[in-house]
Amino acid sequence: MTSPSGSTASATPLRLGVAGLGTVGAGLITLLRDNADLITARAGRPVEVTAVAARDRNRDRGIDVTPFRWYDNATDLVSDPNVDVIVELIGGADGTARLLVESALTAGKPTVTANKALIALHGETLARLSERHKAPLLFEAAVAGGIPAIKTVREGLAADRILWIGGILNGTCNYILTAMRETGRDFADVLAEAQALGYAEADPSTDVDGIDAAHKLTILASLAFGNPIIFDSVHVEGIRHIGALDFSFARTLGYRIKLIGLARRNEYGIEARVAPCLIPEASPIAQVDGVFNAVITEGTFVGRLMVEGRGAGAGPTASAVAADLIDLARNTTAPVWGTSSSELKSVRSRPASEREGAFYIRLTVTDRPGVIADIAAILRDCGVSLNSMIQHPSARTDQDVSLVLVTHPTREAGMQHAVDKISALPVVLSAPVLVRIENL
Amino acid sequence: MTSPSGSTASATPLRLGVAGLGTVGAGLITLLRDNADLITARAGRPVEVTAVAARDRNRDRGIDVTPFRWYDNATDLVSDPNVDVIVELIGGADGTARLLVESALTAGKPTVTANKALIALHGETLARLSERHKAPLLFEAAVAGGIPAIKTVREGLAADRILWIGGILNGTCNYILTAMRETGRDFADVLAEAQALGYAEADPSTDVDGIDAAHKLTILASLAFGNPIIFDSVHVEGIRHIGALDFSFARTLGYRIKLIGLARRNEYGIEARVAPCLIPEASPIAQVDGVFNAVITEGTFVGRLMVEGRGAGAGPTASAVAADLIDLARNTTAPVWGTSSSELKSVRSRPASEREGAFYIRLTVTDRPGVIADIAAILRDCGVSLNSMIQHPSARTDQDVSLVLVTHPTREAGMQHAVDKISALPVVLSAPVLVRIENL
Repeated sequence: MTSPSGSTASATPLRLGVAGLGTVGAGLITLLRDNADLITARAGRPVEVTAVAARDRNRDRGIDVTPFRWYDNATDLVSDPNVDVIVELIGGADGTARLLVESALTAGKPTVTANKALIALHGETLARLSERHKAPLLFEAAVAGGIPAIKTVREGLAADRILWIGGILNGTCNYILTAMRETGRDFADVLAEAQALGYAEADPSTDVDGIDAAHKLTILASLAFGNPIIFDSVHVEGIRHIGALDFSFARTLGYRIKLIGLARRNEYGIEARVAPCLIPEASPIAQVDGVFNAVITEGTFVGRLMVEGRGAGAGPTASAVAADLIDLARNTTAPVWGTSSSELKSVRSRPASEREGAFYIRLTVTDRPGVIADIAAILRDCGVSLNSMIQHPSARTDQDVSLVLVTHPTREAGMQHAVDKISALPVVLSAPVLVRIENL
Repeated sequence: MTSPSGSTASATPLRLGVAGLGTVGAGLITLLRDNADLITARAGRPVEVTAVAARDRNRDRGIDVTPFRWYDNATDLVSDPNVDVIVELIGGADGTARLLVESALTAGKPTVTANKALIALHGETLARLSERHKAPLLFEAAVAGGIPAIKTVREGLAADRILWIGGILNGTCNYILTAMRETGRDFADVLAEAQALGYAEADPSTDVDGIDAAHKLTILASLAFGNPIIFDSVHVEGIRHIGALDFSFARTLGYRIKLIGLARRNEYGIEARVAPCLIPEASPIAQVDGVFNAVITEGTFVGRLMVEGRGAGAGPTASAVAADLIDLARNTTAPVWGTSSSELKSVRSRPASEREGAFYIRLTVTDRPGVIADIAAILRDCGVSLNSMIQHPSARTDQDVSLVLVTHPTREAGMQHAVDKISALPVVLSAPVLVRIENL
């Protein structure tokens, strides 16, 4: 391996066994070929694929796989003596991917993965395996694709105390929300278009229900706060309930609607949550549109920092995987969660009900005198203070009217209680849409 | 030092000798004290100041320096056996700062600096010294303060081929240009205010004439393209010639005015330049206002990436210096320019006259028939194709009128030739204001 100051570039290649030859796997092979000259210079030695594993040997992937030794079983890559590093691009929190990464680390083989679910759910166990067997585990590609988010948090901001971290972590949702805002169309309509364009899967639930963003937030928050967050404790909401009308109201109020993953630490603990939020439209993160991702954070010394870029796709993801490979070749890898695993202690996110913040509530109500008085009384009784109330002229029929309430900062438990009571009023015609307001 | 997997946290502290106790030096000492717990965990061992050097021992810096060994001569820090790492926070391309860094590296002591002028002017020599003596040289704080710009380019994007890199690299200029746009005031007026607020120096020329931004661009471009750029070959313009009227015209045309450092590589070489530019107002970098900095780049695989944050100040700069110290403590440092110095070859920037791009030209002319025909004829004769021409209603007096021409993309040499001829017309009443348009 090269010395830290790079003086002894060696010609011994770093030999890879790549498991999974989907879009990212094919992208990585292309990148390592196209950029071989500069990767060799920066890594101090060549970085080469020697073996691959995938299910179907005969599928056309647009790349030539004949130069590589082929394995039908990914875990067989681990025992190949000509494989120095395992690259896991299979995906999924368990099954083959988990088995492969655990066997690779146990065998002392450095491992690079783009698998957000695996790291989010099993990160603490894997960190201990990595440390015990002195086998680095790298996963830059698991969060925000081509954005070096992991490196930024774990190394770039290593000296600072992070107050909160979050961002726009799912390109599919950001594409859908951007298109809804720009065109005034409904969720189902825009989702169908995103599926036709390849920006959303046939089964879109992992994306549109917020799970993918929650995996990434769990990883970012674990790094930022130095302790693995227990994934099941993260509060997750998707974007299916956001309607065309909400964009119209948000615009009137000076906000944009984004699916935001956000984790904050205070004296009581860490609160991590993925949910649609209203963000002031002048905020930098409100400007991040389409399939772009962004990570935003604030540290006590560094202040606010935002990184924006392509969060998915073959090129950006392959770039992140290959950057990890260069770190491995240089022998400049950091511990999995930034500290020795003896320092680690998994923590639960505090329940969302303990959040204190402002809310947007959209109601469809019968257009009749006294309705607003009834709603206002419920809010008062639940200790929720009202900031403003608006009706949208275009959202009014003969019988019913859409109205939006904006509250002052309030405890979420009280707000939820008020919404339950409001929902039960006979004049309230459909389920209230409740969206948090975050001044990011 | 810790192993890469972080398993052997050692209690042996990393001992620093800090030269220069201005704002950043005092900020670093504060940060290392306030964040000692997490820095120890992330570095695998304590990071402690043991000695300091500054000119005036009795100045009140708001920090207690009595625990540290004091040196009047910074270079004496190098021979202190209790100093493991030199931290150079004196500043300046030559003089004490250069002497200190060269002696530290020659003595094999790892060195961290925030000195952009030193790295921009002497980066190649220092890289060779660093490599020869196996003494890492780190300078994250030299570019864009708290933004981990160096790490992002050198490590995060190490696997990709960068097409261009640039950004808003001087907070003083960005503050002045933002205030001019928001208030309609003139340069001199806003500069005086910035000086009163401490955002600009008494002698503001290093900032407002673009030199500071050029130092930072030189470093970024050297990293991005893998070869040190010769600083003197970088084209540098400041912002003194931009008037209140330009903001008004730019708004009408859908642009914002930003001081942009930009370096591009093409088949002919690298072109690096600092100059005010018109940027489409919908572009992410056009939204970066006030004292904030941003670095933007595009790679063949990663696509576009932008990082935005605080580019100066004690806290952000100290955070960057301390992140370098953690990398040193972990022994995870990269070569100065990302490759072995045997790969390095200093290169000159191509002259700006070879740029091909669109231009904005503001002219003050006598309000008389035939003027526009004369100007249009000159442009035609110089091979410059006109895209649009506007007059601003408010910028018209009885005798003269301000008009703005926007060209199609054209060779800069031809444009400059046309402007020289236009300036010589008797009806042209003051020096034309020429601003490049960049679709970043």
